[in-house]
Amino acid sequence: MTGPRARGRRPGDPDTRAHILDAARELFAQDGYERASMRAIAARAQVDPALIVHYFGTKRELLTASLQLPVDPQSVIGEVQSRPSGERGAALVLFLVRTWDRPDYRRNFLVMLRAGASDDQARQQLQDTMRHSVQHAVAGLVDDRRAERAALVMSQMSGLALARYFLCIPEIVAMSPEQLATAVGPAIQRYLESTW
Amino acid sequence: MTGPRARGRRPGDPDTRAHILDAARELFAQDGYERASMRAIAARAQVDPALIVHYFGTKRELLTASLQLPVDPQSVIGEVQSRPSGERGAALVLFLVRTWDRPDYRRNFLVMLRAGASDDQARQQLQDTMRHSVQHAVAGLVDDRRAERAALVMSQMSGLALARYFLCIPEIVAMSPEQLATAVGPAIQRYLESTW
Repeated sequence: MTGPRARGRRPGDPDTRAHILDAARELFAQDGYERASMRAIAARAQVDPALIVHYFGTKRELLTASLQLPVDPQSVIGEVQSRPSGERGAALVLFLVRTWDRPDYRRNFLVMLRAGASDDQARQQLQDTMRHSVQHAVAGLVDDRRAERAALVMSQMSGLALARYFLCIPEIVAMSPEQLATAVGPAIQRYLESTW
Repeated sequence: MTGPRARGRRPGDPDTRAHILDAARELFAQDGYERASMRAIAARAQVDPALIVHYFGTKRELLTASLQLPVDPQSVIGEVQSRPSGERGAALVLFLVRTWDRPDYRRNFLVMLRAGASDDQARQQLQDTMRHSVQHAVAGLVDDRRAERAALVMSQMSGLALARYFLCIPEIVAMSPEQLATAVGPAIQRYLESTW
């Protein structure tokens, strides 16, 4: 194994892992899982390919790491839970739009969609993440029919992300996080507390 | 050009075009646009590859045809518009879930998602379809802030489709079209008529 390139990042740099992950998400989003090579990811991250193997293992394992959510849903829910119960729908929308609006997180969403759409194993992993992480966390906000309500919340939030970051529907893109919280929040609120 | 194979479909068969389109959607959904070959699509449709060229032109043009919506949004909206205005949200959900629940239409949704996720040209085409066809049709249901309301309706409907057909969230998959109309209909209704 060769060492890192002279002008590249060093193995000891605590940000090296994060830089590799950023580069991997960029190239997985841009070229797709199959076409993005470990060599190209290494070049983008300015590291030696051997360093990627050291931190992540195989390309498949690098994809798995790239598909991790950028924020812990449980901590978001903890924050939302501290609000009055009638404001939680809007708080959820506000928090998630502000998070996804960050270019690096948005890329994460596109990687997940792209990998899941073209690879059954990645789709399965995405399903597991959504069910066992996001849906489980949202279920902590409600008292009855927890899994069903959480699934409906999740479907509305996914649709919002799809419209804003993937389909880029101009009216949705033009709205501020606060405007989206006002427009979409009550729909989320209804899934959290109404009877139907 | 060789003629259609002995046991294959004939050029004169009025269903031939539809059979080719079915086969193309199946293989585009299964293998992705790049990997699905014209030869494999022809074999699946039991036609000579030359017949595909005759009906659709290039592989790119075949993808374009595959990305067409299976139903005309304008006719759905016409049907929904005949209902009392307070029932339109539920009617929209019911109609769309029943449509997407058909395996051939569901495949159409997955082809659109997969192609759009891996190919910028297909994503642009998907954006155009959503804006100029779906969003435009839904805007016909409302009196003010038409494009914005229609965009929000579309975001919720896309999220529902994503959860039911792509992420396969068990609680969403388990609900009947009628149950989904009851649960999600009022959210759509709100986007059609509320002020915020």
